[in-house]
Amino acid sequence: MIAEIIAIGSELLTPFRQDTNSLFLTEKLNELGIEVVHKSVVGDDRAELASVARIALNRTDIVIFMGGLGPTEDDLTRESVAEAMRLPLRRDPDIVAGLYARFAARRIKMTENNSKQADVIAGAAVMPNNNGSAPGQWLEGSYEGKKKVVILLPGPPVELKPMFMEQAYERLRAIAPPAFIATRVLKVALMPESECDSRCAPIYKEHNGVQTTILAGPGDIQLHLKARADTLEEAQELVDVLAEELEDELDERVYSTGGESLEQIVGYYLQMRGATLAVAESCTGGLLAERITSVAGSSRYFLGGAVVYSNELKTAMADVPPLMIAEHGAVSKEVAIALAEGIRKKCKADIGVGVTGIAGPSGGTAEKPVGLMYIAVADGKKTDVIDRKVPGSRDRVRFYATQQALDMVRLKLV
Amino acid sequence: MIAEIIAIGSELLTPFRQDTNSLFLTEKLNELGIEVVHKSVVGDDRAELASVARIALNRTDIVIFMGGLGPTEDDLTRESVAEAMRLPLRRDPDIVAGLYARFAARRIKMTENNSKQADVIAGAAVMPNNNGSAPGQWLEGSYEGKKKVVILLPGPPVELKPMFMEQAYERLRAIAPPAFIATRVLKVALMPESECDSRCAPIYKEHNGVQTTILAGPGDIQLHLKARADTLEEAQELVDVLAEELEDELDERVYSTGGESLEQIVGYYLQMRGATLAVAESCTGGLLAERITSVAGSSRYFLGGAVVYSNELKTAMADVPPLMIAEHGAVSKEVAIALAEGIRKKCKADIGVGVTGIAGPSGGTAEKPVGLMYIAVADGKKTDVIDRKVPGSRDRVRFYATQQALDMVRLKLV
Repeated sequence: MIAEIIAIGSELLTPFRQDTNSLFLTEKLNELGIEVVHKSVVGDDRAELASVARIALNRTDIVIFMGGLGPTEDDLTRESVAEAMRLPLRRDPDIVAGLYARFAARRIKMTENNSKQADVIAGAAVMPNNNGSAPGQWLEGSYEGKKKVVILLPGPPVELKPMFMEQAYERLRAIAPPAFIATRVLKVALMPESECDSRCAPIYKEHNGVQTTILAGPGDIQLHLKARADTLEEAQELVDVLAEELEDELDERVYSTGGESLEQIVGYYLQMRGATLAVAESCTGGLLAERITSVAGSSRYFLGGAVVYSNELKTAMADVPPLMIAEHGAVSKEVAIALAEGIRKKCKADIGVGVTGIAGPSGGTAEKPVGLMYIAVADGKKTDVIDRKVPGSRDRVRFYATQQALDMVRLKLV
Repeated sequence: MIAEIIAIGSELLTPFRQDTNSLFLTEKLNELGIEVVHKSVVGDDRAELASVARIALNRTDIVIFMGGLGPTEDDLTRESVAEAMRLPLRRDPDIVAGLYARFAARRIKMTENNSKQADVIAGAAVMPNNNGSAPGQWLEGSYEGKKKVVILLPGPPVELKPMFMEQAYERLRAIAPPAFIATRVLKVALMPESECDSRCAPIYKEHNGVQTTILAGPGDIQLHLKARADTLEEAQELVDVLAEELEDELDERVYSTGGESLEQIVGYYLQMRGATLAVAESCTGGLLAERITSVAGSSRYFLGGAVVYSNELKTAMADVPPLMIAEHGAVSKEVAIALAEGIRKKCKADIGVGVTGIAGPSGGTAEKPVGLMYIAVADGKKTDVIDRKVPGSRDRVRFYATQQALDMVRLKLV
């Protein structure tokens, strides 16, 4: 079965706002073996909306409308879909009563325009909204003699997601042909996309039954694997065998096989080893600490650290000798090592990280260009240090440096 | 004139990838007075693509296709658009020669499939690609007897954006009816959306000629104003008058009127006053320093700071007395003040910031719930401190706290 997702709202046709619900819905539909073949965005215009609805009903089995279910005159989804399907709207007295009760509970008088939220397309089942006022609708109907499923969902993600999962997902599963789909995600740190692709491509080719997608970011690659089979066990077997072969090939470059982020994985390892972490960062300016502390519960292993932008602070916070900075420069292997070792001692941590570099866009020289970075990790026994030179914007250079630092901590702990 | 933007690529119908080019294109089209009335996403399927092209040509004046211009068998935009318009494709020998030269310069043999990038729709002008191999195309043609503009652009943003600006923007301006559009953005910190709306709505109503859009994030509101008139001066006058009235109403809550971010504004004020800044952050875990240092050139006024997750580090890095923590708790007004004053002295900065709070999702108590935060700003004369309790996720709480801290620094300097 194939589906189309239609996002409704003139604000989605401005430079400022974008539909993101469709990514969530696509993931859930794919789980059920339903492919999304079209996505459309249309404004709050009844004729356009009815036309888009007819086009979608013509070309797909399942049409999901998001938004336009509120009380204002711009909310036209109910009317337009009913018109496209040539079905009447009926005002549901139970929904009207519920709306009055909802307003009364808040001691607000309900304005009359709210009642239109109780208009239901003939034959549709109402999906109550536990997180807002506009209910959704589920309709199994026909269009041009063919069976169609039409779903109306509210636009706000906090309303749409629970309504879809609680009231539409199992209904779709009952209708869609049984589909057994298994997925896996391998995450790979610090490998160029072309190298990853050339090492993995020969392996993919021997596993035609598995669909693979590579997503690449700065210092980070995700390999998404998906297989479909006659049973869930068979589908799982297909992705697992491929995942295992890819892991063998990429070896320790694979940091996660269950969807976890690199900062989560570093947190797992630190907790497993009962170790604590502290960081001293210059060019990344707090981004490394921010990524580490974005993980809930990180206070169990992360003590803290210093953002040492000025040379004086490198000395005051991480005991980097001023003479070393004068001799080698703030962006140097020596200073990275001193930062890692200094912050480790200062914070009484098991592992210390030092990051120094030139994030750009200015501040580079011929000898020390923008994108140059030194990163060191100390554990009291041995201090690892590497230098890298990466291209790109300030954001990209900074993110890459934190990726490199996190991965070095991971490799210390594996 | 009205436009449709079509994003092409099966990866855009997965849960992993999303078109973002259309936001950029919408902004630029709106500048020319062209409204975007439809956006569509379609996979790499020739029949579907030709069908989507026909639908778009039927309902809009300008159709922009993005992606599907590469050398692989999945790249079908040229063929499908030509088919929809009933025009032949012609292979352009100059483009073929250019492709050979491009590969030769890299000492790589060109594979035959690359030649299809030289196929041009009859009547189209070629738009050379200075950042990739696939050229774009510009076609003024007709469909069902009506004049249409068709633009083919490559999918990668680094190729699409310069090609559009250098080779399509002025051509569109020459075709579109003269439009004089002026815009302004007011940014407002730390005001609830409902309060902002109720204070601004009466003012909007007296300025019907200006279109307003409110975008709200945690602790941040953007008011986008747009006006259209017979001359640019008139349009500018319309938005400027409204902007001024809104500024009068919202007063010092407005931090920026030229599109700058709060961290940029704080940087401007610090430079203007010749002042330096240091921060000591607990619950925000580096996010405050990260936001400040995301601004290029921030090393001129930001000295650095400390991420003090553990109580020991609050003492070691910012001289918070251990007895104070024992008596009032790490999340307290007293500790926020001590962090701000301590880090200011430690770093010899003009201004010191202290942030402590409970970001969640766990760690809250009845007395000190998740979302509680204390933020202090010290300048050596007076230390301001506030407490807030905000709802929402860990990310939201952390972002709000940094927003609050940056705005307090701004108000110290205004």
